[in-house]
Amino acid sequence: MKGIPTHQSRTTRTSLVMPLDTNNHGTIFGGKVLSYIDEVAAISAMRHCQQSVVTASIDSVDFLNPVKEGYAIHIEAFVTWTGRTSMEIFVRAESENLLTGDRQLTTTSFLTFVAVDKDGKPVPVPPVIPETEWEQELNQSAENRQLNRRNRKKIYQLSGMKK
Amino acid sequence: MKGIPTHQSRTTRTSLVMPLDTNNHGTIFGGKVLSYIDEVAAISAMRHCQQSVVTASIDSVDFLNPVKEGYAIHIEAFVTWTGRTSMEIFVRAESENLLTGDRQLTTTSFLTFVAVDKDGKPVPVPPVIPETEWEQELNQSAENRQLNRRNRKKIYQLSGMKK
Amino acid sequence: MKGIPTHQSRTTRTSLVMPLDTNNHGTIFGGKVLSYIDEVAAISAMRHCQQSVVTASIDSVDFLNPVKEGYAIHIEAFVTWTGRTSMEIFVRAESENLLTGDRQLTTTSFLTFVAVDKDGKPVPVPPVIPETEWEQELNQSAENRQLNRRNRKKIYQLSGMKK
Amino acid sequence: MKGIPTHQSRTTRTSLVMPLDTNNHGTIFGGKVLSYIDEVAAISAMRHCQQSVVTASIDSVDFLNPVKEGYAIHIEAFVTWTGRTSMEIFVRAESENLLTGDRQLTTTSFLTFVAVDKDGKPVPVPPVIPETEWEQELNQSAENRQLNRRNRKKIYQLSGMKK
Amino acid sequence: MKGIPTHQSRTTRTSLVMPLDTNNHGTIFGGKVLSYIDEVAAISAMRHCQQSVVTASIDSVDFLNPVKEGYAIHIEAFVTWTGRTSMEIFVRAESENLLTGDRQLTTTSFLTFVAVDKDGKPVPVPPVIPETEWEQELNQSAENRQLNRRNRKKIYQLSGMKK
Amino acid sequence: MKGIPTHQSRTTRTSLVMPLDTNNHGTIFGGKVLSYIDEVAAISAMRHCQQSVVTASIDSVDFLNPVKEGYAIHIEAFVTWTGRTSMEIFVRAESENLLTGDRQLTTTSFLTFVAVDKDGKPVPVPPVIPETEWEQELNQSAENRQLNRRNRKKIYQLSGMKK
Ligand SMILES: CC(C)(COP(=O)(O)OP(=O)(O)OC[C@H]1O[C@@H](n2cnc3c(N)ncnc32)[C@H](O)[C@@H]1OP(=O)(O)O)[C@@H](O)C(=O)NCCC(=O)NCCS
Ligand SMILES: CC(C)(COP(=O)(O)OP(=O)(O)OC[C@H]1O[C@@H](n2cnc3c(N)ncnc32)[C@H](O)[C@@H]1OP(=O)(O)O)[C@@H](O)C(=O)NCCC(=O)NCCS
Ligand SMILES: CC(C)(COP(=O)(O)OP(=O)(O)OC[C@H]1O[C@@H](n2cnc3c(N)ncnc32)[C@H](O)[C@@H]1OP(=O)(O)O)[C@@H](O)C(=O)NCCC(=O)NCCS
Ligand SMILES: CC(C)(COP(=O)(O)OP(=O)(O)OC[C@H]1O[C@@H](n2cnc3c(N)ncnc32)[C@H](O)[C@@H]1OP(=O)(O)O)[C@@H](O)C(=O)NCCC(=O)NCCS
Repeated sequence: MKGIPTHQSRTTRTSLVMPLDTNNHGTIFGGKVLSYIDEVAAISAMRHCQQSVVTASIDSVDFLNPVKEGYAIHIEAFVTWTGRTSMEIFVRAESENLLTGDRQLTTTSFLTFVAVDKDGKPVPVPPVIPETEWEQELNQSAENRQLNRRNRKKIYQLSGMKK
Repeated sequence: MKGIPTHQSRTTRTSLVMPLDTNNHGTIFGGKVLSYIDEVAAISAMRHCQQSVVTASIDSVDFLNPVKEGYAIHIEAFVTWTGRTSMEIFVRAESENLLTGDRQLTTTSFLTFVAVDKDGKPVPVPPVIPETEWEQELNQSAENRQLNRRNRKKIYQLSGMKK
Repeated sequence: MKGIPTHQSRTTRTSLVMPLDTNNHGTIFGGKVLSYIDEVAAISAMRHCQQSVVTASIDSVDFLNPVKEGYAIHIEAFVTWTGRTSMEIFVRAESENLLTGDRQLTTTSFLTFVAVDKDGKPVPVPPVIPETEWEQELNQSAENRQLNRRNRKKIYQLSGMKK
Repeated sequence: MKGIPTHQSRTTRTSLVMPLDTNNHGTIFGGKVLSYIDEVAAISAMRHCQQSVVTASIDSVDFLNPVKEGYAIHIEAFVTWTGRTSMEIFVRAESENLLTGDRQLTTTSFLTFVAVDKDGKPVPVPPVIPETEWEQELNQSAENRQLNRRNRKKIYQLSGMKK
Repeated sequence: MKGIPTHQSRTTRTSLVMPLDTNNHGTIFGGKVLSYIDEVAAISAMRHCQQSVVTASIDSVDFLNPVKEGYAIHIEAFVTWTGRTSMEIFVRAESENLLTGDRQLTTTSFLTFVAVDKDGKPVPVPPVIPETEWEQELNQSAENRQLNRRNRKKIYQLSGMKK
Repeated sequence: MKGIPTHQSRTTRTSLVMPLDTNNHGTIFGGKVLSYIDEVAAISAMRHCQQSVVTASIDSVDFLNPVKEGYAIHIEAFVTWTGRTSMEIFVRAESENLLTGDRQLTTTSFLTFVAVDKDGKPVPVPPVIPETEWEQELNQSAENRQLNRRNRKKIYQLSGMKK
């Protein structure tokens, strides 16, 4: 399969933080940020492989700064690495106080998506062609992260917890 | 007030068309597209003026092509013109079939937002500095569109319908 | 096809403005009003033609008065004119302060819906029979508005923007 | 306080049954119908008393016919009886197959709302003036229904379950 | 069919009361509570019969205490009685002030669900085996409640209101 | 502060997987699972500390099995460890095919919540008293996980990415 340059999977989404998204102190729920991150990363993965995808995993997420109602939240995602059927996506979320223009990092994370057919069986994906220097660095460090994920998953299997 | 270049108000949002957004033929409701357009345009207006804003009007909208569940919808907005307290925003919506990469224009439109204080009273906004050639054309043709909106609104007043 | 009198397509909806619908000043988003208008107009169009419908266009909308959380919003729609496969719907939205009974016009607009089969292909609709004097006036002025919409749409086609 | 004629509290709402409202057989959840009924009845109660209200109770509800995705659901409510601080509301819900015009009764019920101040303390409401014959019948039979509700509530108190 | 012990259908759900669920005094809508009750009871019924189910009826509901935004609401349901195709479910809803640990009864009620096939036709359900003393009491008093529901429904049929 | 036994923070939530939660293959979005996990864990944390809380982090999450529309999803959370102002919560999510009773593990994870006052400043929390053997094991292994999280966060600070 022909390689796909990173810019083709780059996806961004800016949205308003609504009352619906916030707790009774007016700051966004962590779960809402995770839900937005998953949506933007899924579009990015589908743009890369032109297949349906499922979220296989999300690496740890640290919420660095609170995001308030009325702020904008800006999410950006692109494919950093591909295996046979899996893709690693880097995501960055940032908040913006629309009354001052101030921006703060909310979090960054890596998600893995797997391309699947109608029955949910994994299918091959094209390789990624990282373009900028940073994209290449992320691509090279990916194998290491993927190894950690495999070990992580083995624990479930060993412990017989999967079923 | 210092002028604000267009790129500072440019706002984009890519999102998945969800079952929640579609009718029983699996195509998006016109009302959902309008609701997304209004949200992205509002963020664009707030980025420009760093004030709260309300939607004053939306010009006519033609829905050129259906958008299906599972597609992505991509919306882009920026400020084209400013009055004393009002801003005109151009919006372009496009759909993307994620399984083929095919993109189709959904619609374009102009919205007007007004900057307001806590009591909903209009407050002045900084002027816009259009950058590209196209942004300058849109800026020059804006006065004409604004005139049409004024006439349009007079009809309400004449007919005594406002109350 | 037998003509359908206007009262058969008349549709109304009164609903509460919820926190979910409002910005952080507690007034409704323009996009929410547009979304409600589209839903009520779609039901009206379906009542007329007993077919599935898609929104082809919405004419310009001016938001005349803010609508607050806790108010009711009242929307009314009926078919004013029919072409071969398209129907023009008039919509009127009004807010009501439930603690005083005060009502204010929010906006009026015209939408065009097209009856479609399962593949989204336009199908014929029955003619409308306007009943009151006002309905007849709206019916007679419709040809003119429809002409404007055709011209409007031609611009998209000429500019090659449709695809 | 001056009596309020029934037509002033009459409230109707027609809405589309959306995928969001239905189970995986495509029929509406009972809970969704109850939620719509409560909203329309609450608006009716507020129109009558021009105060904030809380739902004190809903009488039994029988779901007579399923309502499918793509149907419209039509709800109508008006005040039938008033006590010192409470109002009884009659609600009728009906479904409409928009492709045939066929209508079926979904359910009818009675709800009681209590007018409250900012601290949730009950406050007096104006009396209702039933207009049609049927409204008068419903008004006369209300005392009996209210008695049943009082007895019903006593069981909670006797059983010490309230806390 | 083999009897199913009550503990197999017991279902609980604790959730946060969100801004989306509350009116402008910050207390939950009665309709929201009813919608949660219906969902938890439906899961309980499906756990018992391993079939799709529809809500046939809900008995009267008294809302004993307001539930505020930021509180948790806790709902518990289990099958108390079965007929040929119908199941009676007991539901108890309780609020919890998360800042004090204080709990208050919101309401209790009985719902009837009917197991249905793909065409919505009633199908037989297995009998329930009540376990605790209280479950046995509820089971014995159920016939009486079911009789009331039949009489209630007859009124619709006599009055010719069903269609 | 007096220690709080684990059973006091244990929180469970069973809910139906709705069309709204699923992609166009009818399986739940990873983001939805994360959003449910965050909500249940937040209630658990608040039950422990009787304060407002914010999500500080979520450890990696592996999605082991798809969850289909019409299934139930069951989430369980309890406090495993406490620092001065932070609490570690263990969460386990499981799906249930309601037509067969079959259950599958969806995922497990650890979240960290911090108790905050009205200005979002961290405030002390009471210690946890683990009860069962497994709860004690999770409590003892927590220090190690907390260390990892500290190191993880240092990377943000070193890279100057926090702002
Ligand atoms: C993701 C899933 C399809 C993998 O299935 P599987 O039987 O483990 O398949 P395989 O072992 O063949 O692995 C397929 C690929 O997924 C990768 N993978 C599996 N689990 C992973 C995890 N937790 N994190 C990262 N990658 C993972 C494998 O490394 C492999 O990658 P490669 O083809 O690039 O080498 C399966 O676990 C699943 O369906 N999970 C649920 C997904 C879902 O519905 N998520 C939404 C919320 S539940
Ligand atoms: C509306 C739509 C079906 C029209 O298709 P088309 O190929 O232009 O069809 P036709 O040229 O045969 O026109 C059909 C009718 O629609 C009318 N029409 C088309 N575009 C219109 C517009 N923007 N405004 C008003 N009427 C319009 C035509 O005048 C014609 O009316 P008539 O049959 O009464 O004479 C097509 O543009 C479409 O599917 N758009 C997307 C609709 C949608 O999904 N909306 C939701 C949000 S995207
Ligand atoms: C409804 C509520 C205000 C009543 O408070 P109370 O202390 O019982 O007040 P009172 O005894 O003075 O009763 C006030 C009125 O309510 C009526 N009432 C109380 N409970 C009722 C019930 N279950 N059904 C019908 N009427 C009821 C009384 O008959 C009385 O009517 P009247 O003034 O017309 O004679 C209180 O129970 C409450 O706040 N409940 C929660 C309401 C809520 O938030 N609902 C949403 C979902 S939880
Ligand atoms: C519930 C429903 C399937 C019953 O259909 P029906 O033609 O009345 O069927 P039957 O007369 O054979 O009754 C079937 C069972 O339902 C019970 N039942 C019917 N209506 C009932 C009611 N209102 N309350 C309690 N039980 C009821 C009957 O007693 C019978 O029970 P049994 O088999 O245990 O003896 C039908 O009325 C229906 O589809 N209603 C709409 C359900 C729905 O979609 N609800 C969601 C919101 S609209």
